[in-house]
Amino acid sequence: MNQVRLGIVGVGNMGGAHAKQLLANKINRCVLGAVCDIDPARFTDYPALPQFTTAKKLFKSGKVDAILIATPHYAHPTIGLAAFKAGIHVLSEKPLGVHKADCERFIAGHAGTNLVFSEMFNQRTDPYYIKIREMVRGGELGTIRRINWIITNWFRSEAYYASGGWRATWGGEGGGVLLNQCPHNLDLFQWIFGLPRRVRATCRLGRYHNIEVEDDVTAYMEYATGATAVFITSTGEAPGTNRLEIAGENGKLVYENGVITFTRNAMPTTEFSRTTATLFNAPATTTTPIPLGDNHGGQHNAIVQNFVDAILDGTPLIAPAAEGLNSVELGNAMLYSSLKNKTVELPLDGAAYHRTLKQLVKNSRFTKKEIKPGTASAAEFTKGFNT
Amino acid sequence: MNQVRLGIVGVGNMGGAHAKQLLANKINRCVLGAVCDIDPARFTDYPALPQFTTAKKLFKSGKVDAILIATPHYAHPTIGLAAFKAGIHVLSEKPLGVHKADCERFIAGHAGTNLVFSEMFNQRTDPYYIKIREMVRGGELGTIRRINWIITNWFRSEAYYASGGWRATWGGEGGGVLLNQCPHNLDLFQWIFGLPRRVRATCRLGRYHNIEVEDDVTAYMEYATGATAVFITSTGEAPGTNRLEIAGENGKLVYENGVITFTRNAMPTTEFSRTTATLFNAPATTTTPIPLGDNHGGQHNAIVQNFVDAILDGTPLIAPAAEGLNSVELGNAMLYSSLKNKTVELPLDGAAYHRTLKQLVKNSRFTKKEIKPGTASAAEFTKGFNT
Repeated sequence: MNQVRLGIVGVGNMGGAHAKQLLANKINRCVLGAVCDIDPARFTDYPALPQFTTAKKLFKSGKVDAILIATPHYAHPTIGLAAFKAGIHVLSEKPLGVHKADCERFIAGHAGTNLVFSEMFNQRTDPYYIKIREMVRGGELGTIRRINWIITNWFRSEAYYASGGWRATWGGEGGGVLLNQCPHNLDLFQWIFGLPRRVRATCRLGRYHNIEVEDDVTAYMEYATGATAVFITSTGEAPGTNRLEIAGENGKLVYENGVITFTRNAMPTTEFSRTTATLFNAPATTTTPIPLGDNHGGQHNAIVQNFVDAILDGTPLIAPAAEGLNSVELGNAMLYSSLKNKTVELPLDGAAYHRTLKQLVKNSRFTKKEIKPGTASAAEFTKGFNT
Repeated sequence: MNQVRLGIVGVGNMGGAHAKQLLANKINRCVLGAVCDIDPARFTDYPALPQFTTAKKLFKSGKVDAILIATPHYAHPTIGLAAFKAGIHVLSEKPLGVHKADCERFIAGHAGTNLVFSEMFNQRTDPYYIKIREMVRGGELGTIRRINWIITNWFRSEAYYASGGWRATWGGEGGGVLLNQCPHNLDLFQWIFGLPRRVRATCRLGRYHNIEVEDDVTAYMEYATGATAVFITSTGEAPGTNRLEIAGENGKLVYENGVITFTRNAMPTTEFSRTTATLFNAPATTTTPIPLGDNHGGQHNAIVQNFVDAILDGTPLIAPAAEGLNSVELGNAMLYSSLKNKTVELPLDGAAYHRTLKQLVKNSRFTKKEIKPGTASAAEFTKGFNT
């Protein structure tokens, strides 16, 4: 095989954007082999392509070697597992699933196959986050003591939530900002720092919008190393903030307004504290500029390309789907902590969380007024993804 | 009376700094009338002044009309209440007391007198905080939705903690960073935003230093208005951060690195969210520069001058001591929440907190190795106060 025939399952906002890139030949050695959607009205942009209204028919058709799943979240594992059974490679949009147990089921279904299984964590291709990860994992910051990420630049309007009946409902989406916008940040968080050992969060349901799920989150976390962390997100604030502050033994890193600033201590903090005769002085510092310019990496296309390269050449994945479990577990733990009003120890009890989620779905009395099927303009849509 | 004779009770680091200003005639219509300290060795800088080793003797001497209390915290109410009985005006260093019930006792003892009772909240004279308060209270930011204050630039070395046996012990100081460094920030917090209705905090005891009290705090708060807040402080981080972010209906204010930046929405967030047909766009913004230059106000001397003016002319106080109850209550609530591992509703049960504190004092097995009596250089000392 020297070319991958990729099928896109779900050609709404996100799937449609991926399709457009493929049709513009932005991915080497990959062609859009077919489109699949429950709504045939969405096929008008793809007159020359095979079209399917169920994934089952797509898999049987022999038209694709791999799929990109861009359906509402709940369907990711269901469709992906069926693909594995049909011997088809899978690139799933985030999140991997709505809850931990479903992700585990998805990952277990992949085990033992020779199929490539990747997830659309496009922000892992951003040189800024790659650099921060290197500095944290490579020890340049020393032992990490405190993390503070304010990521509130996910503003969404009421019209956004009204644009799809499934959006921001327990039954349709399984959550709000933690399930839809934040999987990227939660993944970067665990990718850079690993998972904490406990989580305490307050998730406000419909604080800013007429929705039943969370659109505002403040989470406090503790690591086994003793590090503490705060993660704050919202779709209701404007203008939003994206500011990641990392306090380490060797200094402080701040990523904000597109700039990484590292202020390095002349001596590690603990050593200085124990040896100085001064009472109030902190270690001397130097500020190291980390110039990365305007390059935020290949993003979505880079992940699709990497998926294709993994299938054809065995290239290591940037975002192996199994790692997608972590961001779901972290988001689930935040919701669970808030719903139960308690501190949650990790690993999360996936079955208990699933029961809670099912109860929320069952008890939901929420009916959404869907204003319009709503497709955003391309520019607006791209802007909404904070890439 | 056209001049106030001020006595300083406790002429260690802070009291000594105040005395120096008075001797340099920095306060109009005020003279240093006497000094008082349990340690006569501290009198060497004041050979020409009346010296007393107990506050009782000072009050009986007739040498002072007013006192400035700069002793370890526990003694503030005791000395202040005795001063009121002797008809002497009181300016207390922060905190007003170590715990809420003691502050209430202090305030009750002042009621019904005609004496002036002020507290050393010098940061209230800072034009930057005055401006932020005006913008919040005057409605320029609209309804406040979220507050995030990272105030970790209170670095203190092991030598600092070893410089006084009373420091950072339950019995000597009644707490750590919340009682010694943060009263300023906790006061500004309540002065700008008012008190929250509930507090959940994690206070780490001796995380960074060989002490038994808290030197690292992460607190989450909720207001009756629905606003949420995070307050983070530490004496163990370097380099520290002082960054206050306020998200309001009308935009976002950030105070960091000595600059206030206000990003104003063209339309209030809620109105925009409800009326826009776009899905991902946030309101348009303009950034309003708020140039306040290098002027951080009169600080300590301005509070002493205001105290003197209040005595002589009836000038309203910048920091009436009764308001000092709020910062103590807020700090106590954070400690209580952490010690009891629960969310604390305000108003705090002062008696319950006092019982907990007494237990900590009783159970304390901590013995501190005092390296030296340790007086910091003037420059170092001033730098340590983040004015």
